[in-house]
Amino acid sequence: MTDRVQAGWIAVDWGSSRLRAWAMRGDTVLDRAESDAGGGSLARGDFGPALNALVADWLGDGITDVLACGMVGARQGWVEAPYRAVPCPPLGADATAVADGDGRLLVRVIPGLKQASPPDVMRGEETQIAGFLSLNPNWDGVICLPGTHTKWVQVSAGEVVSFRTFMTGEIFALLGRHSVLRHSVGETGWDDAAFAGALGDAMSHPERIAAQLFSLRASDLLDGQRPETARARLSGLLTGAELAAARPYWLGQQIAVIGDRGPAQPYVAGLQAQGVPVTQADAARATLAGLVAARRLMVEAPR
Amino acid sequence: MTDRVQAGWIAVDWGSSRLRAWAMRGDTVLDRAESDAGGGSLARGDFGPALNALVADWLGDGITDVLACGMVGARQGWVEAPYRAVPCPPLGADATAVADGDGRLLVRVIPGLKQASPPDVMRGEETQIAGFLSLNPNWDGVICLPGTHTKWVQVSAGEVVSFRTFMTGEIFALLGRHSVLRHSVGETGWDDAAFAGALGDAMSHPERIAAQLFSLRASDLLDGQRPETARARLSGLLTGAELAAARPYWLGQQIAVIGDRGPAQPYVAGLQAQGVPVTQADAARATLAGLVAARRLMVEAPR
Repeated sequence: MTDRVQAGWIAVDWGSSRLRAWAMRGDTVLDRAESDAGGGSLARGDFGPALNALVADWLGDGITDVLACGMVGARQGWVEAPYRAVPCPPLGADATAVADGDGRLLVRVIPGLKQASPPDVMRGEETQIAGFLSLNPNWDGVICLPGTHTKWVQVSAGEVVSFRTFMTGEIFALLGRHSVLRHSVGETGWDDAAFAGALGDAMSHPERIAAQLFSLRASDLLDGQRPETARARLSGLLTGAELAAARPYWLGQQIAVIGDRGPAQPYVAGLQAQGVPVTQADAARATLAGLVAARRLMVEAPR
Repeated sequence: MTDRVQAGWIAVDWGSSRLRAWAMRGDTVLDRAESDAGGGSLARGDFGPALNALVADWLGDGITDVLACGMVGARQGWVEAPYRAVPCPPLGADATAVADGDGRLLVRVIPGLKQASPPDVMRGEETQIAGFLSLNPNWDGVICLPGTHTKWVQVSAGEVVSFRTFMTGEIFALLGRHSVLRHSVGETGWDDAAFAGALGDAMSHPERIAAQLFSLRASDLLDGQRPETARARLSGLLTGAELAAARPYWLGQQIAVIGDRGPAQPYVAGLQAQGVPVTQADAARATLAGLVAARRLMVEAPR
């Protein structure tokens, strides 16, 4: 029989597609667990049971504190956590929303950030930014967080100054899986030269991008273009369009890319092709460090 | 009891989503019929029965000629009709593919067009172009055919010189219905000023487009932007991106837009905002005129 883990508190990263939890004692991870109960697939009443099911083994007799970030605090989430307005530090001591976890959990939800002009929002990334800054104190520059919705975030003196969201990841998935391009674009595979060529084209001539997407289909029908080449070209065109639009964020800046290898790779390759020096950081490590920082700020400090 | 229509031949427009047929005698329409048996939803063996079901009432004792254009001739269609290479007239006398309609129909399928560089293909639009030219002899200029995949076609001296396909219609539908924007973009409704503003932004600064899509979501969350405004802005951004990329096709040219009012409207508005004179033509009329021209060329002339 193994020793049962009893959590001092529980850190939760609750995105649209995944639910991740860590059993914590202070800053130390005792155990971790994960499920596919992402917030995108849950009705309001399903959040409590989904979390209880994942963490039940870690609970003692009393009420266990939970600190959660991500889509759990969205309007379609468990409990809406109002946005904080930038410029501001990524985390604040106030304004956490609280949800009841069947009387056994006290769940605090970290607010997202909003920007009035141009209008933009984030939810979850603020915690990763805070984690990155706690691991890299006094860091100034631009953080890129690749994902379904990639964020470019200008950070200075510990504050989020401005940010911008790009739907590139979601558009790549929609075009590759649900448009006519699905017949020609591979689900896997890669072609470095095709990516670099398409990226360069898109960045030099962003006004031509709309004309180039259907070529991915025609090149298959007429020239038997390989599916992995089409996949890399599609990524190159869309990443190039994003980098062209995000130029004010990365030109002449110090850049940190926080993300898993798959989503981060096109950004790192694209920025390096522009001669921009890039620091890479692990997404899960940043998230956990952010949740630890949030607990210190929101739960321990106010006591 | 009404007189039964007996077709001399049958004209068929078989796209991905609709099947349309006309009972013809020479150039005269005797009757018309339509179903949702579009080629996109049919397996190869389903095409014959779907057509027979629609036109059975029009058939006499012998074999009835059918002339068909569109997706019916695609690789995923009933019988693959090889592409003809541009520059060439939109229709040729040769290379029709023939499918057997249960021994009662002799179905000729009109080939599409292909372009080697930049790689591109069309299937169905060549018939509309031929119809437009038969209705407007000696017309030179650029034809825009709005749809799921919009085509821009340079026509000179009765030949298709070059063309380019844009996926704007499909991308508009995917983003509006399947991306995170679906929560904020209306299925119907319009806002002229929002369309014009977004179109102007996208055409002046196509490099910024990728940054502006998520704003449609954020403007709803933060400012309660109306769904019809978001819909018009999305259309303006995507149409603007297309017009920026298609500039070599329309700048200083005589433009004819062949399309139904819904799909054509953003193009007509966008081109007029650029001071480009636009002729509008009815899509069904052009298709039928093209099928009549094809019959003259492919069936009657060779005899």
